[in-house]
This record gives sequence, structure tokens and C-alpha cells, in this order.
Amino acid sequence: MAGSDSSQRRTDNGVVTHLGGPAIVLVEPQLGENIGMAARAMLNCGLTDLRLVKPRDGWPNKDAVAASADASLVIENTRVYQTTKDAVADLELLFATTARPRDMVKRVVTARQATVELHDFATRSGKAGVLFGREAKGLLNDDVALADAVLSVPLNPGFSSLNLAQAVFAVGYEWYQYSDATPASEISMPKHTRPGTKQELIYLFEHLEEALDDSGFLRVADKRPTMVRSFRNMLGRADLTEQEIRTFRGIITSLVGKRKKRKC
Amino acid sequence: MAGSDSSQRRTDNGVVTHLGGPAIVLVEPQLGENIGMAARAMLNCGLTDLRLVKPRDGWPNKDAVAASADASLVIENTRVYQTTKDAVADLELLFATTARPRDMVKRVVTARQATVELHDFATRSGKAGVLFGREAKGLLNDDVALADAVLSVPLNPGFSSLNLAQAVFAVGYEWYQYSDATPASEISMPKHTRPGTKQELIYLFEHLEEALDDSGFLRVADKRPTMVRSFRNMLGRADLTEQEIRTFRGIITSLVGKRKKRKC
Repeated sequence: MAGSDSSQRRTDNGVVTHLGGPAIVLVEPQLGENIGMAARAMLNCGLTDLRLVKPRDGWPNKDAVAASADASLVIENTRVYQTTKDAVADLELLFATTARPRDMVKRVVTARQATVELHDFATRSGKAGVLFGREAKGLLNDDVALADAVLSVPLNPGFSSLNLAQAVFAVGYEWYQYSDATPASEISMPKHTRPGTKQELIYLFEHLEEALDDSGFLRVADKRPTMVRSFRNMLGRADLTEQEIRTFRGIITSLVGKRKKRKC
Repeated sequence: MAGSDSSQRRTDNGVVTHLGGPAIVLVEPQLGENIGMAARAMLNCGLTDLRLVKPRDGWPNKDAVAASADASLVIENTRVYQTTKDAVADLELLFATTARPRDMVKRVVTARQATVELHDFATRSGKAGVLFGREAKGLLNDDVALADAVLSVPLNPGFSSLNLAQAVFAVGYEWYQYSDATPASEISMPKHTRPGTKQELIYLFEHLEEALDDSGFLRVADKRPTMVRSFRNMLGRADLTEQEIRTFRGIITSLVGKRKKRKC
């Protein structure tokens, strides 16, 4: 029961899709467009369990579908409830997204910390969720009191009011990043090439230096070692591929040819 | 010159505002609404340097103003350029936001890694920027070739196409989080109260246990120590404030009174 939405579910076209992550509960959302953009943001981040409490314009909603950019996996599985307490009844951990409350005693966490706790919780297979309030007004204090903690996204204190879909995206984005294994930084290259070896790079250095000796650019003997190191550092920094080294050598050959021609 | 936008600037109403962070460069954006939502997302994250390359519907744009939710600090300082190379001419570090390129040799970084590099760069006071492509089409390869690296936001690979404002927000959000000092988790409480002391909590424990001894709930002597520890752990976990401890003791007194009345 609890946690069943974290398992795999077969969709209409037979594709098995991982339906994971916390439920996103929108309380009394007004504009269908905002619901649709929130659904799109959810699917961008691998979240699929969307719940609506008394959406003003009813459900299903054409504006929501139009704004969702084909996030039909979310839109088609959206559930509608009459009260917040019905919408969260099966959840075991609940965050309420709102500004830091001034008149309540409540634990307040950042979006990043909330997703750490949501992931820790998910590994014990409990079902969790995040509440979002209506546009402009936000959540009622009675809704916040149902939650285990307040999730407050740290933002520019002079301009912190987030669009509904952006608030959903902030939570979804952190949720996705937490378990994403993309390298922080790497060189991407077409399949047909590979990083150049040091030997290939050294041949390039020597090719360039020979050409520059020949052209007279390195004629001051005192400065030659410094200049050579400078070229080598400059070219080394570019992390050239094997293909690029060949291209570069082609460039040198071409320029040498041109210069020689001009001389004639 | 470079870095001048990172300093403080006095706005019309005399408020000194920190205008920091990388320039956000939108290349040929089509819908004013998207530009406005991007401007709002920027100011949410403390970014103020918006640059537009050939916005389809011209500039200024009423739809952009309407969608910006009064992010006038961004909207009013937006600069318009005819080419991408003009828009980035003064920048020393440039990321291009796009999917991982298949046909180019390029360093690819996550949004989180890019903002680490942008912050490191900002401390040396160089001016940096991030390029975003037109809706649907994205950036042209010639624009990407102007950038030092590709910034690719890790997202659900089956549904990774981000709305323009969400893409701007992903970068802005990471930029803001990097230097934000909000505690990951803390108990927020009204100013007039404070966390309860252990002494206050122990008085509460003893008050409850005395009432339960009296009511007969703890009559099985063997089980008493386990049950007492269970209450103490349960109440201890709630991190009660001084005010809440008094409220709780009032509840006990009230219930004891009620029970005694019922007995009569």
C-alpha cells in the first residue's frame, strides 16, 4: 500500500516506467497552465505522482494539457481530492513548501536538505510527499500543520516569490540531482575520435617548432626555450583529440605552403 | 569594465542592490512571456544582467513585463544585441546551455559544476555569462562554439526538454545556493518563545507519569520502566519549546480534571 507508487508500473503502451519519488500535492491551484507547467517540471525530474486538491477550474483541464508539453504520464495519472488531509492520507513523510513561518514552531529545511531526507525515506520504501499552496496566497497554516516540516527554498530575500511551476521544479531538480551520476565535468566528443596521446601531441609540438624555426619566428636563441614552453602549455591546455591534432598539423602545413608560395 | 556589473548599484528608489552573478544571454527568444518568466527567475536568484539577442517581438515587450512579476530591476536593465558575438564580447567565461553535443569536441559540465566555476571566476572579478537558445530549437552550433563549455542540466533522459524560464532557473538556483548560508535544517519558532530546557522537560515527564500512576495506566509494575522510557522518547523527539511544555502540562491537568469529574 504505502510505497506502491514507488514501484514500476506498466503504461498503456506496455512500457515499464519507474514511477518514483515523492507525491507533488498542489492545494487549490487556480490556473490550468500552472498545473501543466508543474507537470512538465515534474516529469523533467522523474516525478510522476501529481495530486490536486480542489483545482479551481476542475479536472481534466485543457490548459493544463497544453502547458504540460506532452507530460501525459503525469497528467493522465493525476488524482483529485476535496481536502488536503485526503490528499496526504497515505503519506508517511510530508513537507509543506512555504516561506519560513513566523507564528508556528516548525522544523524548516532547505530544498536540498528535504530531498536528502526524501531519498533516505524512499530507501525504506515509505511514501512521501510535498505540499504546494495556491498561487499568490500559498498554503494555509492548517495545511502547514499537517506537515512534518516546512520546505523553504533559499532565494533572494528581496524577491523570493516563486512561480508555482518553479517551486515544483526547485524540489524536483534537487530530487533528480541527488541520485544522478552525470560527471560534473568531462570532455564530450564524437564517437569516431579519441583524446590525443602524448606522442601525437609531441609530434605536433615538433612540427610547429620546426616550421617556426624555418620561418624565423624562433630566431632569438635566448628566447626560444621560453617560447617553446609557452606554445606547448597553450596547446596542451586545449585537451586536443587525435583528430584535432591531425587538423592542426594540416593547418601548419597549409600555412607553411602559403608562406613559401608568397616568398616565391 | 569587466566585472563592473558585479558591484553595487543604486536603484531609482535609492536602495543599494547587489548586482552580481553571470550575465544571462537569451538568443532569439520568441515569446515575451518566456523572457518575463526568465527575468523573474533571475531576480529570484539574485541575477540581474539580462541580455537578449534579436528578440523576435522586439524590446521593450509588454508580455515580458507582465510575466516578470515586477522584476523591474532586471527588465529595465536588459540590453539588446543583434548578434550573439556582440552580446558576449565583454565576457571572459561563457557557458552554453544545451544538450550534450554529439558532433563537437567540447567540455560538458553540470549546472552545479558550472556555478562552482562561475563563483570561482567571480572572486577574480572577471565577467562571465551563460547562453540560452531559442525555444524549441535551442542554440545553433556556431553559438555553442563561442562558449568555453557546454552546460547541460542533468534531467530525466526520457523527458529532458526544459521550458526556457526553467532552464534559467536551474542555473540561477544553483548560483544562489552556492553561497547561501541558510541552515539545512533548523527549528523555527516565534520570537517570544525558546527551546525547553531539560529541567522543564523532566517536570513534564514527571507530571505525566504521576497522572498516569494516579489513573492506573502504569499499574503493571513490570512494564512501568519500559512505558516511561517510551513516553520520554516520544515527547523528547518533538523538540518541545518552553511554551509547548506549559501547554502540554495544561492538557494533562485538564484531562485529569475531566476524568475526575467523570468519576464523580
